[in-house]
Amino acid sequence: MTDTIETTTEFRPKFDEKGLLTAVCLDAGTRDVLMVAFMNVDALAKTRETGFAYFWSRSRQSLWKKGETSGHVLTVKDILVDCDQDCLVLVCDPAGPACHTNAPTCFYRRLTDDGLEMIG
Amino acid sequence: MTDTIETTTEFRPKFDEKGLLTAVCLDAGTRDVLMVAFMNVDALAKTRETGFAYFWSRSRQSLWKKGETSGHVLTVKDILVDCDQDCLVLVCDPAGPACHTNAPTCFYRRLTDDGLEMIG
Repeated sequence: MTDTIETTTEFRPKFDEKGLLTAVCLDAGTRDVLMVAFMNVDALAKTRETGFAYFWSRSRQSLWKKGETSGHVLTVKDILVDCDQDCLVLVCDPAGPACHTNAPTCFYRRLTDDGLEMIG
Repeated sequence: MTDTIETTTEFRPKFDEKGLLTAVCLDAGTRDVLMVAFMNVDALAKTRETGFAYFWSRSRQSLWKKGETSGHVLTVKDILVDCDQDCLVLVCDPAGPACHTNAPTCFYRRLTDDGLEMIG
C-alpha cells in the first residue's frame, strides 16, 4: 500500500503558492487559541531549532521571533500537523500576553447578533 | 478617541485578496483544534444563520457545509474574532470525527526529529 500525505509518517509540509503554512498557536495550559500566523521554511526551521515560535510577517516580508521586542515569547512544546500537511498547531507556553494589544489572546471578542462583545 | 479594528465592537471582517477569512475550529469539550478551513462572506452568513459550520472550498471553488455527506456536522457554539478581524475561532460541538480520514481531529500527528508520530 502506498502511503499518502494523510497516512505517511514522513513530514512533507505543503507550503502554499506564497511559500507559507498556517500556524495556529494553542495555549498548552488554558487550551485557548492564542494567535494565528504564517510560517515559511525558515520560520519553521528556526522554531524547531530553538523551541521558540518564529513566523513570517506577510506585511513586513520578514522573519520575526514572536516576543522579540515585548519579551512575550512562545515556548513551543509540541507541533501538530494536519491531514494534508498545510497547517500546524503549535502547542505553546506563552511568556506573557500573546496579542500585540496586550490581551492574553488575539481572540478577545465574541461575535453576537449585535456586533462584537469583549470576553472576560 | 477613534476606535480601531482592534478596539471596536463593530464587526468589520477583513477578507483577504481572495475574499477569505481563516477559520480555526476548536472542540468546545476537549479544546483540541479540530480543523482549519476558510470562509467567504456566504459561508460566514450561512454559519451565523444556521448554527452549523459552512466553509469555502478553495479546491472545488464552492460553498460546503461541513458534514453534509458524512453527517459529521459542527454545531457552532461561539465565534471568536481576532485583533485584526481576519481570523475566526469557531468553538464547536462535533457530531463525529472532524477529519475526512475519520480521525477525531485533522491534527492526528505530532512532528518529531524523526518525522511524524501518530497521536493517541
